[in-house]
Amino acid sequence: MGRGGCTVWFTGLSGSGKSTLSEAVAQALRAEGRAVELLDGDEVRTHLSKGLGFSAEDRNINVRRIGFVAKLLARNGVIAITAAISPYRAVRDEVRAEVLASGAGFIEVFMRCPIPVLAERDVKGLYRKALAGEIPHFTGVSDPYEEPLHPEVIVDSSTDSVADGLARVLAAVRAGAAL
Amino acid sequence: MGRGGCTVWFTGLSGSGKSTLSEAVAQALRAEGRAVELLDGDEVRTHLSKGLGFSAEDRNINVRRIGFVAKLLARNGVIAITAAISPYRAVRDEVRAEVLASGAGFIEVFMRCPIPVLAERDVKGLYRKALAGEIPHFTGVSDPYEEPLHPEVIVDSSTDSVADGLARVLAAVRAGAAL
Repeated sequence: MGRGGCTVWFTGLSGSGKSTLSEAVAQALRAEGRAVELLDGDEVRTHLSKGLGFSAEDRNINVRRIGFVAKLLARNGVIAITAAISPYRAVRDEVRAEVLASGAGFIEVFMRCPIPVLAERDVKGLYRKALAGEIPHFTGVSDPYEEPLHPEVIVDSSTDSVADGLARVLAAVRAGAAL
Repeated sequence: MGRGGCTVWFTGLSGSGKSTLSEAVAQALRAEGRAVELLDGDEVRTHLSKGLGFSAEDRNINVRRIGFVAKLLARNGVIAITAAISPYRAVRDEVRAEVLASGAGFIEVFMRCPIPVLAERDVKGLYRKALAGEIPHFTGVSDPYEEPLHPEVIVDSSTDSVADGLARVLAAVRAGAAL
């Protein structure tokens, strides 16, 4: 147990760059020979949380499940990277406490990006619809997003490059997990 | 990946001895310094499958979730032991295929025990109620249980001691996972 495992927990709005950066981090750590599992938000919804919706309660159940699996992996030496929106602070902090109690490290990566920038990019066309009031429970627009108060890493994808973000997350993993 | 990890999948009726033997196996392997996670049926229902019922569909979703988590652990070198009733053969075989495809081993342990013996023991008083028609969806009485056709290990808890079962499972783990 606790052989250098940790959970790298990405949180941030849709389109903020969680998937892109989490994949880059996973790739870099695998290249170093580390055991890595990437629990992407969509993959997890398929395998662990099918049937759950986007109410606060359902979102929190989803986040707790991801946290449960990440903890099992991290306390066995794996670097478990998660990339779900995870909008509520209290549940993220609950997961953090559980992972730390299991003897593994926990690194929260806050992907910060202003809504106007996200709406401007709008890769999936969702912000336009959400801002027009067409999507209920759209995080950051019609549903709350509670920013982390003390994340280990902050990456602002409106100003930071992926390489910058990658370097910062890897430094935190190395410091936190004592690779 | 695949550093000797495997999934030890217990299956059998309620009261057949899955929990007892799976705990003994976990303890023995931990004592040898192996990384072990025991995914007990009840624990998993709390953390991964709250809200699911006991219809065939819900049971299969539950089993697939356990299989997903067991696979993630096993392909990272952990011995993931599961102890859920898992009554349907097709889904157990689906999980087996996924775990094997991930490069980890899969050992199915069938806890066989005749219903009359279970009804005689009836630790939780459930068989009496189920046989009286008071519990719908009670596996083996009012709901199907499909025995494995080719399990790696069969333990009959009406005749085999826990020590016998333990020795047989450990031998299979050693053979299958190349400890």
